[in-house]
Amino acid sequence: MNERPIGIFDSGVGGMTVVAEIKKYLPYEDLIYLGDTKNFPYGDKSKETIIKLATKCAGFLISQDVKAIVIACGTATSQALDELKRIYRLPIEGIVNPTVQEIAKNAISKKLKIGVIATEGTIKSNKWEKELKQTVKNVEIISKACPLLAPMAEQGWTNNNVAKEAIKEYMKPFINKKIDKIILGCTHYPLFKELIKQEIGNEVEIINTGEKIANYLQSFLQNQKMENNKEHMGECRYYLTDMQCNFIQVAGKLLQDKTLENKIQKVNIE
Amino acid sequence: MNERPIGIFDSGVGGMTVVAEIKKYLPYEDLIYLGDTKNFPYGDKSKETIIKLATKCAGFLISQDVKAIVIACGTATSQALDELKRIYRLPIEGIVNPTVQEIAKNAISKKLKIGVIATEGTIKSNKWEKELKQTVKNVEIISKACPLLAPMAEQGWTNNNVAKEAIKEYMKPFINKKIDKIILGCTHYPLFKELIKQEIGNEVEIINTGEKIANYLQSFLQNQKMENNKEHMGECRYYLTDMQCNFIQVAGKLLQDKTLENKIQKVNIE
Repeated sequence: MNERPIGIFDSGVGGMTVVAEIKKYLPYEDLIYLGDTKNFPYGDKSKETIIKLATKCAGFLISQDVKAIVIACGTATSQALDELKRIYRLPIEGIVNPTVQEIAKNAISKKLKIGVIATEGTIKSNKWEKELKQTVKNVEIISKACPLLAPMAEQGWTNNNVAKEAIKEYMKPFINKKIDKIILGCTHYPLFKELIKQEIGNEVEIINTGEKIANYLQSFLQNQKMENNKEHMGECRYYLTDMQCNFIQVAGKLLQDKTLENKIQKVNIE
Repeated sequence: MNERPIGIFDSGVGGMTVVAEIKKYLPYEDLIYLGDTKNFPYGDKSKETIIKLATKCAGFLISQDVKAIVIACGTATSQALDELKRIYRLPIEGIVNPTVQEIAKNAISKKLKIGVIATEGTIKSNKWEKELKQTVKNVEIISKACPLLAPMAEQGWTNNNVAKEAIKEYMKPFINKKIDKIILGCTHYPLFKELIKQEIGNEVEIINTGEKIANYLQSFLQNQKMENNKEHMGECRYYLTDMQCNFIQVAGKLLQDKTLENKIQKVNIE
């Protein structure tokens, strides 16, 4: 039993798709969310920069006495998870391992063909490809960087003609390639799930990595006897490093929470 | 006569549209360009953040012994020009004043209807509206923030279906409004000039602010006797704060310079 909150961070509003899943799997946990909106986007920054920013984000969450940290950001997971694990003692997990583990667990004998879409930084890091080939083994990967999708989501354009054309453009490498699954390797991308489905068809499984990390976190806290067993719903506090953004509009719609605004504070993590 | 180079900075590749104009107006000047790609985009960051970043950019250029600084970024001009002028002694100019001055000079007696498109930060600052109303006087302004265009340009999407749909969306407030001119208040936007023209029609004058600052700079250097009168073409050195970007691809196309790659260095301005 451990009543301390779980810390979650992302570059902006994308990680809120992970928060939505964690709230489903772990409704009694208190959460602290940090959106590093001041430094958004992470997707096209160098590894060196991402490590510096992610270290500060994790440091802030630790100062809030969290019991574990979820990197709810594909870029920070692929570029900085190993380094954060080296620096900090508490449990830290990102979106890659839980997803890869679950794919491996359910893998069948035939060769799997998996599409991965993510930011420029994540695709260049080859993190998904390396982990999938090591763990799932009999697998073929097609990767595609989609640098505009996260900025589009931050602006609230997830279902207009621009979003449709962008998804059409970014899905081209996957059309007629008979892929089995597509991994949404950036936490902003579940906001485009319906458009992606329309483009690549119903037969392709769309993997929301937020659901995988939430599922993993539930088992982990149980195994470690770290769950919060109190009987009222968990609360979530939100911190942003810059308030001039569409966080309230986009996240409010996603969580259907009209009181979100009152739970957000500005914080300086420099 | 002053052989020192001119310093120019922007958040990324946008300011290269200004470089292209300065090269036309002042072919004998040496230039030093700083693209703060590590902190791109500036457009949705707070005024406080932009001032901090712009101060560092200007400081770096001064360390390279420039004789004047051009802020080739709409956001940094509208948020940080006044502060930079307070801090530094050398001549500093951005894209707003030269543009407004020229509009005022050519203004006719009838009321002018002017559209302004720019980043979120620039539009929120009301800089264009304030300056135009103060200087041109008989003027009506319609403003529209276009937060996706700069990231789109950085990715090289300036003429595909996504760009077309985005321009269509962003031009809506100007259609059937009988505007006389539209100011491209972000230096990335000249890359979309053809699409903008298609959408709003030939009768609207499209104002490339890079051309206005280049023209202004030419007169200023002449008046101050600060031109470089050497008789060989000026050279340009480029510095980027992060190399993982499409700068070479986009800027190379814009300047039609195949040797651009050899002139770029990474720099840390923290």
